[in-house]
Amino acid sequence: MTRTFTAHDPRTGDPVEPSFSEADTAAVDAAASAAAAAAPALAALTLDARATLLEAIADALEADGPALIARADLETALGEVRLTGELGRTTGQLRAFAALVREGAHLGVVIDHGDAAATPARPDLRRMLVPLGPVAVFGASNFPLAFGVAGGDTASALAAGCPVVAKAHPSNAGTSALVAAAVTRTVTRLGLPEGTFTLLQGAGHEVGSALVTHPQVSAVGFTGSLRGGRALADLAAARPEPIPVYAEMGSQNPVWITPAALAARGVKIAQALAASATLGVGQFCTKPSVVFVPPDADAFVHALTEAVAAAPLGPMLDARIEAHFVARRADLAALTGVTDATAARTSDARGGVDAGVLVTDLTTWSREPLLREECFGPLIVVVRCRADELVDAVATVPGGLTASVWSEPDDVADRTLAAALVDRAATRVGRVLHDGVPTGVAVSWAQQHGGPYPATTAASSTSVGMHAVDRFLRPVAYQDMPEALLPTCLHGANPWSVPRRVDGHLELP
Amino acid sequence: MTRTFTAHDPRTGDPVEPSFSEADTAAVDAAASAAAAAAPALAALTLDARATLLEAIADALEADGPALIARADLETALGEVRLTGELGRTTGQLRAFAALVREGAHLGVVIDHGDAAATPARPDLRRMLVPLGPVAVFGASNFPLAFGVAGGDTASALAAGCPVVAKAHPSNAGTSALVAAAVTRTVTRLGLPEGTFTLLQGAGHEVGSALVTHPQVSAVGFTGSLRGGRALADLAAARPEPIPVYAEMGSQNPVWITPAALAARGVKIAQALAASATLGVGQFCTKPSVVFVPPDADAFVHALTEAVAAAPLGPMLDARIEAHFVARRADLAALTGVTDATAARTSDARGGVDAGVLVTDLTTWSREPLLREECFGPLIVVVRCRADELVDAVATVPGGLTASVWSEPDDVADRTLAAALVDRAATRVGRVLHDGVPTGVAVSWAQQHGGPYPATTAASSTSVGMHAVDRFLRPVAYQDMPEALLPTCLHGANPWSVPRRVDGHLELP
Repeated sequence: MTRTFTAHDPRTGDPVEPSFSEADTAAVDAAASAAAAAAPALAALTLDARATLLEAIADALEADGPALIARADLETALGEVRLTGELGRTTGQLRAFAALVREGAHLGVVIDHGDAAATPARPDLRRMLVPLGPVAVFGASNFPLAFGVAGGDTASALAAGCPVVAKAHPSNAGTSALVAAAVTRTVTRLGLPEGTFTLLQGAGHEVGSALVTHPQVSAVGFTGSLRGGRALADLAAARPEPIPVYAEMGSQNPVWITPAALAARGVKIAQALAASATLGVGQFCTKPSVVFVPPDADAFVHALTEAVAAAPLGPMLDARIEAHFVARRADLAALTGVTDATAARTSDARGGVDAGVLVTDLTTWSREPLLREECFGPLIVVVRCRADELVDAVATVPGGLTASVWSEPDDVADRTLAAALVDRAATRVGRVLHDGVPTGVAVSWAQQHGGPYPATTAASSTSVGMHAVDRFLRPVAYQDMPEALLPTCLHGANPWSVPRRVDGHLELP
Repeated sequence: MTRTFTAHDPRTGDPVEPSFSEADTAAVDAAASAAAAAAPALAALTLDARATLLEAIADALEADGPALIARADLETALGEVRLTGELGRTTGQLRAFAALVREGAHLGVVIDHGDAAATPARPDLRRMLVPLGPVAVFGASNFPLAFGVAGGDTASALAAGCPVVAKAHPSNAGTSALVAAAVTRTVTRLGLPEGTFTLLQGAGHEVGSALVTHPQVSAVGFTGSLRGGRALADLAAARPEPIPVYAEMGSQNPVWITPAALAARGVKIAQALAASATLGVGQFCTKPSVVFVPPDADAFVHALTEAVAAAPLGPMLDARIEAHFVARRADLAALTGVTDATAARTSDARGGVDAGVLVTDLTTWSREPLLREECFGPLIVVVRCRADELVDAVATVPGGLTASVWSEPDDVADRTLAAALVDRAATRVGRVLHDGVPTGVAVSWAQQHGGPYPATTAASSTSVGMHAVDRFLRPVAYQDMPEALLPTCLHGANPWSVPRRVDGHLELP
């Protein structure tokens, strides 16, 4: 019997039509098989044809923009302004990957000419990166478009030349269906194989498990919880043929404020952090969750509490997330050594949760594992430190996506402290910021959205920015291959005008 | 009680002095902790200092060359000529990685300048690759030097800036100890931290398991058996913080001969394959193990059998490997549908095993899983095919390191067949050769020594060639960071003169 489910309106808790059928094993198998069947044709596309696909998907999503945004707002309550921006980010990254494909650096072309006179004789070797094969993409709940079924994972997988089987997040099932319709329409219009992109719906874990363990799936992209990401990674590692799982699973995004910065700008920093921690109801993987402050931070804590309490908040993404946040916040506030600076406030009937500021000390922070787990939602923990504890505190923070340091560049003593903080933080996270908030992840070549476990399952990868394409490629070398049998991009005359390394030297076209 | 063991002389089976103590848990912990303590200093070295370390290790190994080669020959029976070449390969790749480090492209420097006027404002983002942390390296049995404790894995890990804890293969424990002494002497002479390189000895699995599960180990490099590599990968995936395992576990290295090539050069191809399959007593991970031949291959099979039977063979690397080979060969020869073309031969008291040629058909090959597993040793299987079966046979071969196609480039029909074989083979392996044998793996920029599982646990990586360094790096981005707090290689003026991507454009220094 086919099970069905619906998404829910976070503002009312009511189910929203239509209902979706949970994909069964046969549907997962059909999707993975269609993807495998499409793989050779996608891999064989010229760079221009591959770029055109990405651009056409962007165009189709834009054409459907109003309907997409309305549906996404109904299912997430994130609001039209935010979702309009998110659609722009989604189409922008599709087009950015199209430009990347046209340049061709991602092919990693290397040519070492042979030398029959060498001892031993050196063969002619030519190396390029080829698509891994079908990629399973798991849409996220908190970014229904930019990290949804045609978000960064799908854009980078298609840019690599990999077919995609996307699993919609059940809380934005309707949005995902509309996005998928736009992608599928584009694939059909361009005459590409049907298996280039397939959407699967499911409210339980079964669809995802079947997908990750399917023998024709070659890699996985996931954005979501630590529990979910680790479960998929464990399934993938236990396969007869293990496959890579690129799971981005969240982060504490710790913040350090130096004594000089606290003295000079404590209140302003508090206001910036409050805005960042409550943005999107605190439902960002880059939300600053913990701030390490030196002594004399009372004014900072006061300003942070005021600003957090005053932040406009809507409902959270779904009832499960909201219940988890409320319970976790209560558990944290009840810990010995933790004070709830916002405890006096009660719900003011804004229809959402209350944001919170908890205050503790380094001993408590170091002792209580619960404090060091991500708490998804508008909560920020202040850890009061001695000035000489700030640097050592870096080692107490789990691997993460970001770390931020606020310091006074013109104060020599402060710069020494900041340098130590930045250097240490770089060993624990993928992105280190100065005087800024970690929310807002620019899509560009230099972006790094990843980090040591538990931030991700693959610290050497990024899920945002141009280098996300690297996750879905693998190298192949051709030895002494006649040009007639070589892929075009490896021909000597460089017909695709790609950057290359030839006989050890980098060459630009 | 400390357990001890010795290596053995493969020519006599006798133990060779000295005996080595099995590292206990405390020794593993001390090694990993020392490596973790050394990591920041190694990461902070200038490119020149890091390159100097690699070159000085090469010099030290060369200075100790005669002793190293003598000991390696005693423990492996591979002979002075082969081991002299292997030492050259070992020092050559250390020096090649030094040159790579000096160029600095491996740092992957990317700079995206900020734009405060953009909507939303774009931050300044600068990205580079940093060392992963301590790497556990497992020395291989079949290349005591080039894939030993200062082989390609160690060279590439040090090039990345990672400390190394090396586990010697017990069958070349003495060679490994001499190599480690040269490395350690160099580390001391250069004033680098002791934990830069540590050697651990062990004959059982305990040392390796303790090392791979140690919380301060960040990545693993391994060359060896499928069973061993998979066991380490499973241990690493089940850690509280999973780490990447780069295990190269062998391959079938299938060969295809087109009808035109068979007709034109069948006997010559047979002789080349026989030499490759028996080189080093067939103990290469790139040994060609299976040849798919079209009809009319009788002369080929005859020539192959003659050449294999005439090949000079010594003893195998150790008694366990030899016993496994003899048993596996007998099991394979006993399969219904398999003929032992060399069955009439008996041991001719050369002090080694007999090389073998087995002949079968595609149905038997596809039916018997044992045929499709790597058989380590001088054995080659001929699969007789119909001409129209050759291409479909590609799908029957497990993921591998190499595939080879022999064809006649000037024959149009033959080129079409060859193109199909090459394209299909590229989906299953890391290196595709034309008219050549897969043994002999050049160390260069374009080399790819890796491939889909079960060839390796990470198809996107190579364990030979310059790109091996990529395995031990991860990206870090700096956002809006004052130059005084940035790593030198990210400064605007490019003080280290490294290739960069700036505002989307590749730039050479």
